[in-house]
Order: sequence, then structure tokens, then C-alpha cells
Amino acid sequence: MSNTPHTWPRLFIQEKLSTGELLTLPPEQSHYLTHVLRSVEGDSVRIFNGVDGEWRAMITQCPVGKKKGLILKLIEQRRQHESIPDLWLCCAPIKRAHFDFMMMKATELGANVIQPILTSRTQIRESNSERLRAIAIEAAEQSERLSIPEIKPALALPDLVEQWPAHRLAILCAEFGDAQPVAQALSGALARARPSAAILTGPEGGFTQDEMMQIKALPEVLSIRLGPRILRADTAAIAAMSCWQALCGDWQNRDFHTRPDKIANAEKE
Amino acid sequence: MSNTPHTWPRLFIQEKLSTGELLTLPPEQSHYLTHVLRSVEGDSVRIFNGVDGEWRAMITQCPVGKKKGLILKLIEQRRQHESIPDLWLCCAPIKRAHFDFMMMKATELGANVIQPILTSRTQIRESNSERLRAIAIEAAEQSERLSIPEIKPALALPDLVEQWPAHRLAILCAEFGDAQPVAQALSGALARARPSAAILTGPEGGFTQDEMMQIKALPEVLSIRLGPRILRADTAAIAAMSCWQALCGDWQNRDFHTRPDKIANAEKE
Repeated sequence: MSNTPHTWPRLFIQEKLSTGELLTLPPEQSHYLTHVLRSVEGDSVRIFNGVDGEWRAMITQCPVGKKKGLILKLIEQRRQHESIPDLWLCCAPIKRAHFDFMMMKATELGANVIQPILTSRTQIRESNSERLRAIAIEAAEQSERLSIPEIKPALALPDLVEQWPAHRLAILCAEFGDAQPVAQALSGALARARPSAAILTGPEGGFTQDEMMQIKALPEVLSIRLGPRILRADTAAIAAMSCWQALCGDWQNRDFHTRPDKIANAEKE
Repeated sequence: MSNTPHTWPRLFIQEKLSTGELLTLPPEQSHYLTHVLRSVEGDSVRIFNGVDGEWRAMITQCPVGKKKGLILKLIEQRRQHESIPDLWLCCAPIKRAHFDFMMMKATELGANVIQPILTSRTQIRESNSERLRAIAIEAAEQSERLSIPEIKPALALPDLVEQWPAHRLAILCAEFGDAQPVAQALSGALARARPSAAILTGPEGGFTQDEMMQIKALPEVLSIRLGPRILRADTAAIAAMSCWQALCGDWQNRDFHTRPDKIANAEKE
């Protein structure tokens, strides 16, 4: 296995991380390292838990047997914990393949909370939150995120509206009515003054007029329009999140201190 | 079947459209209408061919037999042809499920040309352009587009660079180096003065330094950065297209004349 940090496998675990600690990996992650990646004793792994930054760990034991977990020793912290912009995605569940995709992309795009909402046109009423969390974890591992988005239990739209935190800007993806073009809306004073935001997307078929009125009655709301073509719900969510990160979120920053590996990799070529 | 235009099936066909003309649908579309949607004689259908706008047609004959096509009569033009912004997506092929997804989303987001590029880290060298075109057609039918993106045969990156049209702005999705934050780059004078643009995305693993240098040697180039997290190639393409449409493309417009059906639908509720 390569010795450059950017090629070390990157895993999310639930445990507390501190120097010298020994961790036993769960069977699935142990299987992934030994049988998929062919890792051996002495190999390095990157570990994060959503709280303590990213750590280098070393495989110290590879016990034989299906149910035995690999033992890792934590060597040192490689990245300190960083917070990400406070962006929620409140989205009506859609067909499984598209919703799974939405979870993966929302994680890459930096959502920190994903809130499924049940609306009157929502066809898909059940979502397996364990499966969604597994998708989010895998996407976080690959995207170099230091945290996993929190996937909340589904809420009916009226309940979400009732519990809405007053300081959070609601960004409604609307296809018609008084919606503003997205760049204009997100460049405006309201969007730029609110560091906490939530993007709301409807199911296939969209929100009803009544649901739109409920959302528009929230304390701070922007209705945005994503162009003249009809976007699927997952496309709308991804497009709106991209525009928000670009205009209001952490895509505005010029310097990132989080990717020394990438830079090292580029310089080597 | 409902009588409101927005629920009429919407189909792309290759033939020329003019009032009173009779069309015979190919077997697949005939099967879709009769067996999936249960359409019958007298039902209305929306038809577009990428050139003549959108037309209302009526089913005038449903011949029995698997290989026989439905016969449609063209009634009237419902929308005139409109051009869309001149945006290309030049993308290295990636794993099939993700590349199919990229085709679908690029169509919804208004790409008018999709140019697969072969780079030194491109693992997937073959792409079935018939399958990709079928995906783009389906996405165009659903997104209310009046045209289908042209899917070009794959080109090696050096050949693409050699044939590059000088007036077209190249927007390179780069993860490091001198790339500018996307909103800053696309709000700048260069991006706003160039109505013809192409977004370039690499394969899994990215472009090599040498390939980046080739792209940066094009006449007009912007390197953009899409935030601190590592995005998959398909996410980067979708995010960059969304930002371009929002800041330089047709998402800037406030009024769209293309969705009377949507508005009528909303008003009915």
C-alpha cells in the first residue's frame, strides 16, 4: 500500500480519538480494509469521528476470523476539527435511486442536516434512515469531510413549519409565482446576512399552493427559481445547494487549509 | 387521460413538424403510449423535434400488432422554438451509473453539447453513445426542453485542445493551484462577456498537471474551485453547470414564457 497520506484509506468511526489509543474496527470496516483494500499490519489509515478532526492510525493487528475486528493504534492528529457552513437540506423523499443519490451529493456539497419532509404529494413515505446514513458516511469518507450530516427522522411539513428555528433562513425552490432568480436572491442582503439556512425541495409533482403558503409564512424566506427548464427534485436540491455554497457558503473562500495532500499529489507529478 | 396540456405525454421525434401532417410513431414510443400510459384514439400528445418548437398532436389510429406504430396528426404549434445558452460540457467518462446520471442532469441543466474526453487517468474508455442519447432524450422530454443535447464522439484531450473554437471560454474545474472560487470567477468580466462556454471536468483522479497546462493554454480560460470538499466528477459537473446557469446563463431571467402549463396548474389548485 502506498505511503502517501492522500492514498491512505479514510474511515468514519464512532469512538473518541486520542493519541496512543487502540481501537477495534467493526467487522464491516475490517473486512473492507483486509479483503477489499488488502491492507496489512503496519499500514496507515485516516480516521475521523465528526468531533476530533482527522487522525492517522496504524494497523497493529489483523486477527484471523470473520467476526474479529482489526486493531488500530492512533498515531497523531492530522487535521483539526473544522465546522462547515450551517446548511440544512429539507427534502421530500423521492424514488429510492434518486433519493440515495441526493443523500450522497448533499453530503459532498456540505449539508450538515438532512431533514426528510412528508408533503401531500409525497409518494414515498418510508425512508430507511440506516441506509441513508450509510450512504452519507461513505460520501463523507470520500469527500474529505470531517463530519457526517445528521439525517433526521421524517417530519410532516406542518410540524416542520411549527418547529422552525426563527433565525434560520428558509430557501424555497419554487417553479413559479414570485420566485427570484437564484443568483439574484442569494446575492441579496437577506441571504448574505443569515449564516444559517435551509433549502426546501418538494416531491415529484412539487409542493401544493397551500404548502408553499405555509413555507412562505416562516419568519425569513426566499423563494428561488432555478431557470426555465423543469428540474427533477434531486437536481433542484443539488443545484440550489451548489449556488448557496458558491454565493453564501464556504465556496467563497480562496484558501483552503484542508487539502495539503491534494497539493502534494499535484506537485509530485 | 387528462385534458390539461401539462399532463399530455411529451415525446421527441426526428421528423419535420407542420400543421395537419400525419406521423407514424416508432414501435417503442407507440408501446409506451398504448401500454404504459394507456393512451387511446383522440388523446393529445406533445411533440418536439429540436427545431420546430413544441406541437400538439392527436392520436388518430392505434393499429393492433406489436410492430405497428401509432398514427398521430399534428394539430398546432404550442411553443415556438427557443435557443438555450451555448454551454458545452466536456467531461471524462466515469463509471456507468454516475456517467448516466451526469448525462441526465446535464440535459436538465441545459447543456447543448456533451463532449466526452479521454484523458490519461480515464479508466472508462468506451461509452455507448446510443444509450447516452436515449438518456438525454428522456431527460429532455421530462424537463420541457425543446432540444436534445448533441452527444459527440469521444475525443482525446489533445485533439479537443487542438480543435478548440477560439471564442469559447473554457471553464476548468480544478481542485487546487490558482483556481478562483466559482462565484467570483463567473461573476467576473471574462465569464460575463463570453456567451459561449464549456465546462471541463476530469475523470476520477482528476486531470494530470500536464493536462491542466494544456487546458490553461487555451485562448480564454477560467480555473474554478468548488469549495474545500472533494467532489466526485459528476457532482463537480452538476455544480459548475448550476453556477454557470445562475450567474451567466438563462437562470438569470426573471420571466419565462415557457411554462404556461405550470402556472395554469398552480392556479387550479
